[in-house]
Amino acid sequence: MTKKNFSPFGDVIETDGAERILINEGTTERFHNLANIDVESAGGQPLINIFRGQSKPQPIQIKMMERHPLGSQAFIPLKKKPYIIVVAAISKNISPKDLYAFQAQGDQGINYKRNLWHHPLLTLENNHDFLVVDRGGPGENCEEIWFTKEQGAAQLVF
Amino acid sequence: MTKKNFSPFGDVIETDGAERILINEGTTERFHNLANIDVESAGGQPLINIFRGQSKPQPIQIKMMERHPLGSQAFIPLKKKPYIIVVAAISKNISPKDLYAFQAQGDQGINYKRNLWHHPLLTLENNHDFLVVDRGGPGENCEEIWFTKEQGAAQLVF
Repeated sequence: MTKKNFSPFGDVIETDGAERILINEGTTERFHNLANIDVESAGGQPLINIFRGQSKPQPIQIKMMERHPLGSQAFIPLKKKPYIIVVAAISKNISPKDLYAFQAQGDQGINYKRNLWHHPLLTLENNHDFLVVDRGGPGENCEEIWFTKEQGAAQLVF
Repeated sequence: MTKKNFSPFGDVIETDGAERILINEGTTERFHNLANIDVESAGGQPLINIFRGQSKPQPIQIKMMERHPLGSQAFIPLKKKPYIIVVAAISKNISPKDLYAFQAQGDQGINYKRNLWHHPLLTLENNHDFLVVDRGGPGENCEEIWFTKEQGAAQLVF
């Protein structure tokens, strides 16, 4: 997964290709401003959380998607292990054929744009922790869509 | 370092003792709202960055401190290795005798309160990466204080 191929969906949070500033008398490199944190609509503010994900049996069944109309959501792995991203480029009437899957590496975080359809956290191992930066505040910030029996589920093997 | 003993200075970002919410049909635990992100003053917004720190020879010489009057600053280690925190509880005329040092564990992030005197990143090994959540926006957001020759430096061995 690269900044470029993920750009329709959001940001890849990684040092590769980032603006680099030398600080603290040269003892620290700052890789600067790696994601567009978009959480202020409707009186929102940023939240910092840790998500601990459990793996699912393969093939992974993708039966539903969710989105957050009021804010972006960033996931940064706290263990350097790959994980799976499933997103959709369109905003209405999505079905399993509209999905894109990516394998993110353990040194890559991601930030979903506000209102982007994505699957909830998909880890490849148990107890995989992520630092999550998302939105707190008033308003309904989670929508789900479940695929119909006719549409079926997308299936993933990694 | 514990949430309690660090509380005068800010937050410890860890799963221990945090509010825990089961989400994603039970496959994910959300440890919720772990830090007070305070970055909105004077038109600020949250930034996500990665800091890559290099270690210093021991004893580590603490000759200066800095603070960010317009925003909090959070550091979450991306490698599970301990690191060092140096802070001061008072806001004016600090000297080496006013400092507190903590050893944070590799599964503990920290969030400095706005305007808290702290030492820039102190890692115990080279190329130790941290996810940093701080403030971008207008205004001067970094002050430094350098100790005088008479005050000397604090010295740390770990």
